[in-house]
Amino acid sequence: MLTLPDLEEAFNRLEPVVNKTPVFTSRTLNSELDLEIYFKLESFQRMGAFKFRGAYNALSLLSPSEKERGVVTHSSGNHAQAIALAGKLLKIKTIIVMPSNAPAVKKSATLGYGAEVVECKPTTRDREETCESLIKKHGYTLIHPYDNDNVIAGASTAVQELIKEYGKFDAVIAPVGGGGLLSGTALYSKLSGNVKRVFGAEPSQADDAYRSFHTNKVQPQLHPNTIADGLRTSLSERTFGYIKTHVDEIIRVDEGEIVNSMRFIWERMKSVVEPSGATSLAAVRNARSEGLIEDHQKIGLIISGGNVDLNPYFKIFAT
Amino acid sequence: MLTLPDLEEAFNRLEPVVNKTPVFTSRTLNSELDLEIYFKLESFQRMGAFKFRGAYNALSLLSPSEKERGVVTHSSGNHAQAIALAGKLLKIKTIIVMPSNAPAVKKSATLGYGAEVVECKPTTRDREETCESLIKKHGYTLIHPYDNDNVIAGASTAVQELIKEYGKFDAVIAPVGGGGLLSGTALYSKLSGNVKRVFGAEPSQADDAYRSFHTNKVQPQLHPNTIADGLRTSLSERTFGYIKTHVDEIIRVDEGEIVNSMRFIWERMKSVVEPSGATSLAAVRNARSEGLIEDHQKIGLIISGGNVDLNPYFKIFAT
Repeated sequence: MLTLPDLEEAFNRLEPVVNKTPVFTSRTLNSELDLEIYFKLESFQRMGAFKFRGAYNALSLLSPSEKERGVVTHSSGNHAQAIALAGKLLKIKTIIVMPSNAPAVKKSATLGYGAEVVECKPTTRDREETCESLIKKHGYTLIHPYDNDNVIAGASTAVQELIKEYGKFDAVIAPVGGGGLLSGTALYSKLSGNVKRVFGAEPSQADDAYRSFHTNKVQPQLHPNTIADGLRTSLSERTFGYIKTHVDEIIRVDEGEIVNSMRFIWERMKSVVEPSGATSLAAVRNARSEGLIEDHQKIGLIISGGNVDLNPYFKIFAT
Repeated sequence: MLTLPDLEEAFNRLEPVVNKTPVFTSRTLNSELDLEIYFKLESFQRMGAFKFRGAYNALSLLSPSEKERGVVTHSSGNHAQAIALAGKLLKIKTIIVMPSNAPAVKKSATLGYGAEVVECKPTTRDREETCESLIKKHGYTLIHPYDNDNVIAGASTAVQELIKEYGKFDAVIAPVGGGGLLSGTALYSKLSGNVKRVFGAEPSQADDAYRSFHTNKVQPQLHPNTIADGLRTSLSERTFGYIKTHVDEIIRVDEGEIVNSMRFIWERMKSVVEPSGATSLAAVRNARSEGLIEDHQKIGLIISGGNVDLNPYFKIFAT
């Protein structure tokens, strides 16, 4: 069970190595919603997402012999790149198990950070088996993308930065997929007493956290069908426990709301964010219309990342 | 003729009202080019481009009776929105003469900032005649997008901010279209003694500044055919005079180099910038390979704006 000192130690450990990400505001949006909203843009974090915080923290805390043997993880997304970069910086060997049908761009980005990529068949079972056999054979340590307290403590440092710079908040909203970011955000917010309420932002079409929260039991992600590719995973017992205790509500957002929010941030705030990141903005709008947030409140939005495929856009210019 | 105190006064006048725009760096790029590069991202300026600085400065310096009568300009680009927003903030009536075939999105953005739009036929002659007749009839003051010392002094405040925050530079690069931004940048850089060399970045397919610079005479823009829509205009005698005196070279960049640079900034720096803005990055690469910039030098890039049509990209998600 993570404590406030664990989270504060993670902050001190990470401060010299992470990007202190910028915080943006929009006069237009604040006036439209009658709120004071601060966007914490983890899209400007190293490798383009908050995931670097958790990966670096977890790798830093390995024992010397674990560090020497190396780590493995199964992911084709931001966590893979985060582990690869953290491993490069800490001189720890990193192995990423990736399905053979993962986009070439993700594979090359991970290789670019110096990781070793091991391909597996594109099934959850084959992924896990490949990981297990590598661990047995080489003694690697598995770094799970969110079912890991050191990863969660690392993720909490985004809201810590926000609060150190901008003070207390009436509410903070973070996207929820596997629940690592939301757990870290809620833990620090509530244990430090700096944030009154914490909300999770979740796609309606991948709403396992909402269903788990309201049935008080981990529910599986059934058929996630959302553009927010970072939020298709399911809670673990660990993240559900933190969320149940420290989060006030899970706010669901539709696909159109996610795209509109993403477009607003690109167009008006000139920041490239991924669909998962934009769910926090979609959620603040819904929370407002549902009466969960009142006039003049001060709200922090964690925008989780900015890694999105720009190929279709730039193809237009190639002709 | 602008003096250093004019530029410094513009800075003090604008400081309370402009966004202090962020400055980004890229470890990858610095290591690739063996340089220390600072991106001054005017894409994060109010209305999305450096143009707000010049427009606000020029409108602030009108006499009380000029302010009361209002201003007019002919533009369908960033200058129009800049004048509209500055007019709204200063409570000055603004009239924008726009060709009837201007994109609806630009017209609505300008109207959104509270300007009055007067349509004209899509010819330079009709634009100018429409402006002149409005000036005769209503006594409006024309605010030219760059052939105006107060606009140029306003534009100089971007590099002033950069220098106040990051100190002296070996070189600074700014895009050149009509030459307002480059003039302001070069004037302050050289008159203050804080920058050794100043370069203009210009599309090869709209290279009137390059030709003017090397023939020592204002040359017309013949058939501009560049994706960098903000750089299709021609120098005026005024901007040519400043550029001739204070700029060290005009660096031309090809269309593919502009698109690649734009993509790098979007993908790696997670910032939406327009093609005109990305020319500075394309130019630093060319300057490096041409030997105009040496190892380890400290370079400032003015990235002029971030207003670009995202419709084609977001249409993909609408299906």
